[in-house]
Amino acid sequence: MSHERPIWDRGEAIDAAMLAFTVGDDWKIDQRFVEHDLRGSIAHAAGLARAGLITREDHAAIARGLEELLAEHRRGAWNVEPGDEDVHSAVERRLIAKIGDAGKRLHTGRSRNEQIAVDVALWLRDALSSSKQLVEGARGACEALAQRAGHLPLPGYTHLRRAMPSSVRDWALAHARAFELDAAEFAHAARRASECPLGSGAGYGVPLELPREFVARELGFDAPVEPVTHVQHARGRAELAYVSALEQAALDVEKLSSDLWLYSTSEFGFVKLPTAFTTGSSLMPHKRNPDVLELLRAHARQVTSDRTALLDVLRALPSGYHRDFQLIKPPLLRAHDRAGAMLTLLPSLIGALEFDEAALRAACDDPKLRATERALEKAKSGVPFRDAYREESAGAG
Amino acid sequence: MSHERPIWDRGEAIDAAMLAFTVGDDWKIDQRFVEHDLRGSIAHAAGLARAGLITREDHAAIARGLEELLAEHRRGAWNVEPGDEDVHSAVERRLIAKIGDAGKRLHTGRSRNEQIAVDVALWLRDALSSSKQLVEGARGACEALAQRAGHLPLPGYTHLRRAMPSSVRDWALAHARAFELDAAEFAHAARRASECPLGSGAGYGVPLELPREFVARELGFDAPVEPVTHVQHARGRAELAYVSALEQAALDVEKLSSDLWLYSTSEFGFVKLPTAFTTGSSLMPHKRNPDVLELLRAHARQVTSDRTALLDVLRALPSGYHRDFQLIKPPLLRAHDRAGAMLTLLPSLIGALEFDEAALRAACDDPKLRATERALEKAKSGVPFRDAYREESAGAG
Amino acid sequence: MSHERPIWDRGEAIDAAMLAFTVGDDWKIDQRFVEHDLRGSIAHAAGLARAGLITREDHAAIARGLEELLAEHRRGAWNVEPGDEDVHSAVERRLIAKIGDAGKRLHTGRSRNEQIAVDVALWLRDALSSSKQLVEGARGACEALAQRAGHLPLPGYTHLRRAMPSSVRDWALAHARAFELDAAEFAHAARRASECPLGSGAGYGVPLELPREFVARELGFDAPVEPVTHVQHARGRAELAYVSALEQAALDVEKLSSDLWLYSTSEFGFVKLPTAFTTGSSLMPHKRNPDVLELLRAHARQVTSDRTALLDVLRALPSGYHRDFQLIKPPLLRAHDRAGAMLTLLPSLIGALEFDEAALRAACDDPKLRATERALEKAKSGVPFRDAYREESAGAG
Amino acid sequence: MSHERPIWDRGEAIDAAMLAFTVGDDWKIDQRFVEHDLRGSIAHAAGLARAGLITREDHAAIARGLEELLAEHRRGAWNVEPGDEDVHSAVERRLIAKIGDAGKRLHTGRSRNEQIAVDVALWLRDALSSSKQLVEGARGACEALAQRAGHLPLPGYTHLRRAMPSSVRDWALAHARAFELDAAEFAHAARRASECPLGSGAGYGVPLELPREFVARELGFDAPVEPVTHVQHARGRAELAYVSALEQAALDVEKLSSDLWLYSTSEFGFVKLPTAFTTGSSLMPHKRNPDVLELLRAHARQVTSDRTALLDVLRALPSGYHRDFQLIKPPLLRAHDRAGAMLTLLPSLIGALEFDEAALRAACDDPKLRATERALEKAKSGVPFRDAYREESAGAG
Repeated sequence: MSHERPIWDRGEAIDAAMLAFTVGDDWKIDQRFVEHDLRGSIAHAAGLARAGLITREDHAAIARGLEELLAEHRRGAWNVEPGDEDVHSAVERRLIAKIGDAGKRLHTGRSRNEQIAVDVALWLRDALSSSKQLVEGARGACEALAQRAGHLPLPGYTHLRRAMPSSVRDWALAHARAFELDAAEFAHAARRASECPLGSGAGYGVPLELPREFVARELGFDAPVEPVTHVQHARGRAELAYVSALEQAALDVEKLSSDLWLYSTSEFGFVKLPTAFTTGSSLMPHKRNPDVLELLRAHARQVTSDRTALLDVLRALPSGYHRDFQLIKPPLLRAHDRAGAMLTLLPSLIGALEFDEAALRAACDDPKLRATERALEKAKSGVPFRDAYREESAGAG
Repeated sequence: MSHERPIWDRGEAIDAAMLAFTVGDDWKIDQRFVEHDLRGSIAHAAGLARAGLITREDHAAIARGLEELLAEHRRGAWNVEPGDEDVHSAVERRLIAKIGDAGKRLHTGRSRNEQIAVDVALWLRDALSSSKQLVEGARGACEALAQRAGHLPLPGYTHLRRAMPSSVRDWALAHARAFELDAAEFAHAARRASECPLGSGAGYGVPLELPREFVARELGFDAPVEPVTHVQHARGRAELAYVSALEQAALDVEKLSSDLWLYSTSEFGFVKLPTAFTTGSSLMPHKRNPDVLELLRAHARQVTSDRTALLDVLRALPSGYHRDFQLIKPPLLRAHDRAGAMLTLLPSLIGALEFDEAALRAACDDPKLRATERALEKAKSGVPFRDAYREESAGAG
Repeated sequence: MSHERPIWDRGEAIDAAMLAFTVGDDWKIDQRFVEHDLRGSIAHAAGLARAGLITREDHAAIARGLEELLAEHRRGAWNVEPGDEDVHSAVERRLIAKIGDAGKRLHTGRSRNEQIAVDVALWLRDALSSSKQLVEGARGACEALAQRAGHLPLPGYTHLRRAMPSSVRDWALAHARAFELDAAEFAHAARRASECPLGSGAGYGVPLELPREFVARELGFDAPVEPVTHVQHARGRAELAYVSALEQAALDVEKLSSDLWLYSTSEFGFVKLPTAFTTGSSLMPHKRNPDVLELLRAHARQVTSDRTALLDVLRALPSGYHRDFQLIKPPLLRAHDRAGAMLTLLPSLIGALEFDEAALRAACDDPKLRATERALEKAKSGVPFRDAYREESAGAG
Repeated sequence: MSHERPIWDRGEAIDAAMLAFTVGDDWKIDQRFVEHDLRGSIAHAAGLARAGLITREDHAAIARGLEELLAEHRRGAWNVEPGDEDVHSAVERRLIAKIGDAGKRLHTGRSRNEQIAVDVALWLRDALSSSKQLVEGARGACEALAQRAGHLPLPGYTHLRRAMPSSVRDWALAHARAFELDAAEFAHAARRASECPLGSGAGYGVPLELPREFVARELGFDAPVEPVTHVQHARGRAELAYVSALEQAALDVEKLSSDLWLYSTSEFGFVKLPTAFTTGSSLMPHKRNPDVLELLRAHARQVTSDRTALLDVLRALPSGYHRDFQLIKPPLLRAHDRAGAMLTLLPSLIGALEFDEAALRAACDDPKLRATERALEKAKSGVPFRDAYREESAGAG
């Protein structure tokens, strides 16, 4: 892979292996932030013009150039390449190639440290909104299931031992309620992505009168981050809040898939995955397997690992920007993609579940499930509960 | 340690080692939940009476007995003991000893599974409130520092290399802002502890008409948990939300202590810990060490481990109660105690910091800190920023 | 709690809250290292005498004093107390009280930084050996089970669906083999605790001719750590190696308890926990629950959290001693105690398992379990396996 | 992406979204195991022939076909594609296309469950060996540094405060010793990848007389895994052992980069990164930043997260194969690639470090560094050490 000279290059020798190590596959990851980087740059240029820091003509050229780059990117004409250090360099370089010297003025009063913070904040707004919808979809699917099959009995388990009579309705609605609470996490997480980093420069502001309020509003933020030092202080925290919200939802996906994994064994036999949602074995001709449940569970668990990975980037660092922050993006995107895949699939899977009424009724006919009811009947008729309990217990064998 | 017969005992042999293993030190941990358990029991008894499930006389006896147990516990007259299985058994046993048969009616329509959920929810309400105050105290201390020493210059660092001029004010206010955001986490976390588990029994309700709304309000909850199956589904989630909020604050304590750890070295020399906040060496007579900063940092990091430990209890479990949940309490209390100790100490430490004005001024006189300013001056006068940057860069050596 | 003046005290004011925070409950944890600290001190004093750094008389007084302290500690006459900063200060103080000025010479050429490293290394030697024995006990119990019930059939599962015929023997011996591999981890871990830190002082050696080889051999180490700087570099790594070995065993305890948890449900019905190994419910008279399996599983999982906690103390620290290291001990002891409790209980539990032969035979009569055999029979008679597979598959429904 | 029909397909409808979710990017990951899969298949075919389960002619055709596929793969003519379910299906399909019916006999007595176990075991042998060499390279670079610059003084730090005189030699050799211990981890980890899974089928053996010893030796293993049930029991454990070894090395890379990060600040000033190993800022013309150190540190920390991710796949699963195991590969490869990149770069970085002798000498002239020496001098002349300590301490200010 041949690298372009970095934008900070001043002609001295650069160790190629060192540069390759630091860039890593960041260029590829940055392909997902091109749109957000362009939107941020368009707003920054507008701010420079408003403050008189670039001329009206330069602003027009820059704005047009960025809009063209956006259109070209959207139709697949270009993307960040291995030789680009990152999305910011990729855009600046292509802008200068397109419009000449005016392009060299775009970076006035701006640092890549704040650019990536803006890009990710813009990306997070979309991600928070789409993930919230997916979690609400999971909730909806559980509620629909309660409608469809809620009348069926289901043994209630404690310690994975049959405990009390219950119903598919109460089981499905517990899952629905869990997803409802999870969906509310995203609005909370959005709070940490609601302010605009632009104007913070490398983390200590810039000695220019930048119209930070104006730029923040242009980009749909509530306000600029204050003080500017808080931008780098908080790096990764909005991302962490988002992945923490995903983790909450993942915990509930895991519980749901654990239930279905058990209930669909031949031993429990309460529910069947339709054949279209099972896979086969390469060796054993008779097998139809619930791989989808196992991978839902496994991916759900990995969201926690993604969160741990992201958090680990942030820890043990003093104030200010550190290059370590580059590694925030991989676990962020892993968690997002993983959760998106799980949650997208979930409703059709839930919709396809087939409950076995006969098996459910047989399981609920177990007279032990009524032992508590009998003890409580005695309690209602005056026997102290603890004595009634002992009587029933003695008969339980 | 000799165990009492468990309340579920029906006379069969119990393996003593097995029982000791399952009880572990749970009895000791449960000492912290005695008040909450008694409050929950008082409300449950009121509910039983209201529903006509116990007589007015029995209710009066139970209520008086529980109030006496509360008063006796508060004055140190009794506590959960090694032979008690848990706080619930400890209370029931002592109540029966005190008031006789009426005491055997208290457990009517109730399970220990929901009792511990209530106890912890009540405990969490207090914990959330006190931790929020402590985080606000940290914020206040940072703001007071900005008032006191904010006028002093401080080099702004990127990559831990001097980057731009900054100030103690902007540094201290970034920390203050961080704690401000953290304080808001507790209100969010409270949402998961706002509904009352009572009436859910072992997780599937009880075949009795319990006045769940009434009991929930008696205990200060917004409403009963619905559906009842959600109580066990959500076990540990409010606790996790609380420890997650503590983790957010801990991340900011860690950054603050990392900064102070560096700034107070002789190499940086920006700030001094007063002697009263340092410790000595057993071997080296000259040393005064910042142990307090190192332990703030180390404990702050351990809050993340506590959260991981708590989360791990919850994962990979199907619906319903599991005894695994017993292990929620140790990491919950570890995180709470640890964060409390850190945050209680922090304000006096921050208040005692002594900045070295001469050292700060000397560090900020470095002409390199102004290179960006010079490039931006040129940019204002018309030179494209990227060209002005290259000119300054060439002179930087 | 009133603290003694620390041994490094030079009369200046010490912030009491700061001191209490830094000491924490370290004094209590250090109660478990008194014997090891005394053994290390006895060897160090012998080294000082051998090098002529203390007189024969002083050595005799110190040695006698330390032996007395050891005997007194063993019979419960003293222990580390809240007012002691740590075990090292506790011993030094009591020695000086007992023998006067000679006691003040014991700390010549020694630092608490290396003392705790020695204490823990000595403790680890015992712990590694006892834990290895416990893991071998688990292996032995699995092998005994294979002897006792190995002839019984057991369905082999993939994806938790019945796959192929198998046996209790093959199931139990897989667990035995796993524990066999785990037991070998302890010998490997011992390698990181095989060299003696004494003589490293605060981490950079001491300007005295200490007989490090002699002292190392006195304490049963292979050699002194070289270079001395490696002592603090490696702090926590032997502990981590030990807990990593425990984690390996815990993974296998978790799998075993997961199997038993499933196999002992009424739905699977393959194995019964004897009543003496079950517990009851406070509400439901009929329940006998496998709490012991759930807590085995939950504690096994927590060993991983303990390891994470320990590892987190070590990370992100530059060379040299840091007070953070104090927090190595709590997760080390948690993991050790937890694993000890699990592994001690395991053999009697395994020994008590009752397999249900009728249920096992019924489960293994499922003709699907033979589908692979039939396809392979056809393959042996010349049909390409993939075609034979398709034929069997078509009939499987 | 259009999927081929899976090899287990029997003509029923398959939900396309479900299939895409389960395959994920596994096909791409499997591109790294093509060689190992072919080697395993060649040995399995030889075993079938030896046992008379396929004819000599079929064996010849299969062997030739597999060798051709190997050659074609090596020259880039084919690879696993999006439509392939995994590497095993990809190979079987291409073999049948190439040699016809004989190809359908290759899978006789074999399951994909054991194939991937073999593939990864073979891959691990290479990985363990190459990583060990890289760690030894890091050790060698530290030893070379001790040769080159070892004579220079370096302050020894405790609590990041200057403590005692030390040297670059003792600092570099501590790092070298750490890597030496780490290198030994790989040999230990190899133990868990030394036995051959083939013949275990889906985890319960196959009803055929396969020559397991012969096949194991053909592939360079010590022996077949016994009992066969242990293959799936141990899934992921050899991988975990490998990543655990990488984590040990990563901890030491982290410490080294932490040291260099501090020592190369202008405040410490002990060492300089040559310009070729620094990067610049997009905004600040004067900056040369140690990004390489920050990313070494950050990647080193992420190895721990990779290990956590891998471990999480394995936990909480009962005996037997589970599709969850598919997620073992991503963190395994992440950790391997990440550690490889770090360790490959490290020697040239260490070789390029420039120590500032004047700064080092100035730092070591601090008279406080000799306070311990002075106290010990007094101790040698008869003053009890604790008294000499107090005298020096009183003068220390």
